[in-house]
Amino acid sequence: MSSNSTGRKIRDDAYPLPVAVGKRRMVILADGCFSPLGAKTAVCLVRYVPEEVVAVIDSSKAPATVGGVLGWGGTIPVVANLDEALTANPDCLVLGTAPRGGMLPPNARRTIVAAIRSGLHIISGMHQFLGDDGELAALVREHGVTLWDVRKPPDDLGVSSGNECPFCPVILTVGSDCNTGKMTASMEITHALRAAGLKVGFAASGQTGIMITGRGIPIDRVVADFIGGATERLVCEAAPGMDVVILEGQGSLIHPGYAGVTVGMISGALPKGAILCHQPTRTMVREYQIPIPPLSRLVSIYECAIEGIKRVPVLGIALNTFDLDDRDAQAAIESAARETGLPAADPVRFTAGPLVTAIRRSLR
Amino acid sequence: MSSNSTGRKIRDDAYPLPVAVGKRRMVILADGCFSPLGAKTAVCLVRYVPEEVVAVIDSSKAPATVGGVLGWGGTIPVVANLDEALTANPDCLVLGTAPRGGMLPPNARRTIVAAIRSGLHIISGMHQFLGDDGELAALVREHGVTLWDVRKPPDDLGVSSGNECPFCPVILTVGSDCNTGKMTASMEITHALRAAGLKVGFAASGQTGIMITGRGIPIDRVVADFIGGATERLVCEAAPGMDVVILEGQGSLIHPGYAGVTVGMISGALPKGAILCHQPTRTMVREYQIPIPPLSRLVSIYECAIEGIKRVPVLGIALNTFDLDDRDAQAAIESAARETGLPAADPVRFTAGPLVTAIRRSLR
Repeated sequence: MSSNSTGRKIRDDAYPLPVAVGKRRMVILADGCFSPLGAKTAVCLVRYVPEEVVAVIDSSKAPATVGGVLGWGGTIPVVANLDEALTANPDCLVLGTAPRGGMLPPNARRTIVAAIRSGLHIISGMHQFLGDDGELAALVREHGVTLWDVRKPPDDLGVSSGNECPFCPVILTVGSDCNTGKMTASMEITHALRAAGLKVGFAASGQTGIMITGRGIPIDRVVADFIGGATERLVCEAAPGMDVVILEGQGSLIHPGYAGVTVGMISGALPKGAILCHQPTRTMVREYQIPIPPLSRLVSIYECAIEGIKRVPVLGIALNTFDLDDRDAQAAIESAARETGLPAADPVRFTAGPLVTAIRRSLR
Repeated sequence: MSSNSTGRKIRDDAYPLPVAVGKRRMVILADGCFSPLGAKTAVCLVRYVPEEVVAVIDSSKAPATVGGVLGWGGTIPVVANLDEALTANPDCLVLGTAPRGGMLPPNARRTIVAAIRSGLHIISGMHQFLGDDGELAALVREHGVTLWDVRKPPDDLGVSSGNECPFCPVILTVGSDCNTGKMTASMEITHALRAAGLKVGFAASGQTGIMITGRGIPIDRVVADFIGGATERLVCEAAPGMDVVILEGQGSLIHPGYAGVTVGMISGALPKGAILCHQPTRTMVREYQIPIPPLSRLVSIYECAIEGIKRVPVLGIALNTFDLDDRDAQAAIESAARETGLPAADPVRFTAGPLVTAIRRSLR
């Protein structure tokens, strides 16, 4: 692409399904892994669009309800297989797991085939595009359903311009690891800022946020040279008319696989500030032998991440305390605030209030 | 790819041309831009494989010789068009420019078409794959020639393992900007270490190095999540049996577009040390309003780039003094060494000796 992604060009909504966001009847496939750390996409969908989820497939937990499995989430049924899910009259099947590397689990294929034959649209967040699979693509055509490869990026991305968003400031979530709650914190902060009267754009950079909102760019799937440019465009698409954009971050600066995506997003977004997301009980980067440094050091690592371009202040700490009891969760929040000198909160469990206050102050 | 890129799987050589490296007769298309900063690929090819270059096309400079245009490079003719180049009996046409964003310059197309009709193989380093262009792909088939899209990455990349290369240490070149001489410094250091008796693997991460050596992975073109994994594989393919791998870096940590690629490579390679490449007369990142910080600060920025994972010492400074006279070049080298306390050299103009000494010391 010959020119910068200045963000002036706003895409038409790339949402391809014939059923509108808010009207979908989704069955989520999370077989053998429906838990907060095992099926991030599935758990976020039942959290943020429960009215669109008619069933979750996990044969290891069925028969059950989402509330029974997660401790919250109400009476959405957890069923053993697609046949049982079909009794809830779904119109689409969502691949609800986000495995490392993003490839289709082999045992998911026969469920997908059966879903297409049953007339369901398919929503997939895999790195491996289902549309490139000859058999599935032919089946989709034959049955007149739509296949949405959520992770397929726009094909006209470019290099970032190096300019900050011309419409409004950007706040980015970053993390001590993958799967520490960046998406969730971003959603909660967005809702809380809106409740406080601000006009807030939510910029979804990963498959889950894109599935929920029907728009966004899967930054972890773009061409490496275009990470910054794709982030810039994503922000600029969410920003017009807003007071602030909350940008969902990806990866972690201390993750050997994903640090590039993380830094590329920071340098493309040039945010006003960052919210650092962390799970207090996690001491090592998952699947790696890398200790997570103390929070104060992690704040400093992020603030210096692109210091040659811009210093990005960390404005607050969002903790994910799902595996602590209330007292320990409260203690973890107080400890994080004390250690870093920053506002800290678990926006899911308690309130996003302290983070909202910090963000509003930064916008003045 | 379900698992880590452990590097155990070594690819067969992906070099597709029917003419071996060392035997090619290349004509390089660099129309209107054959200069050190205007056509990096072209200039590097005439520097490192001059015996394979039969002509350079640049109508703005023809008739001339490479030596006449660059001040070095001997009698390779610079000609006005493909017809003139054909008299030198080439067997392939190389697209010798690397425009920002990597797209095919429109006026290059008719030269490519004519080259295919003349039976030449095509070597392209564009982000836009010529093989995806229906007209060009059909022409290539019709005329029985080969089209090598150098920037096309392997299709089975994965997430990095977080392990250092099991075969030998890695030294990475990094830069104050794009196009400061990382590829060139990497080649010069490789040659000088070999001359000193070491077994050295050269890991090409960009189109120019891949064209020269016939192997490598174009890291700036891989899926964002796989930058680290691709780098790990690239290193592990170059490392078996070697004393050290010299890994050509990409981008710059102070470049808003490419910082993600740079950090992703550092975290994927987990190098023993880095060589910082800089052009002393450059004060701003090209095409951006970002001042290049003092060298000592830049050293610190790189050493801390992935400090949560590993501290990577900068071992020396490679300067690109092509636009200075000898006295100013020498002064710039002395100044860089004084300011940083590190060995400094211009390995093209003078000698890579100080950098070789520093690297050998780091390997003990």
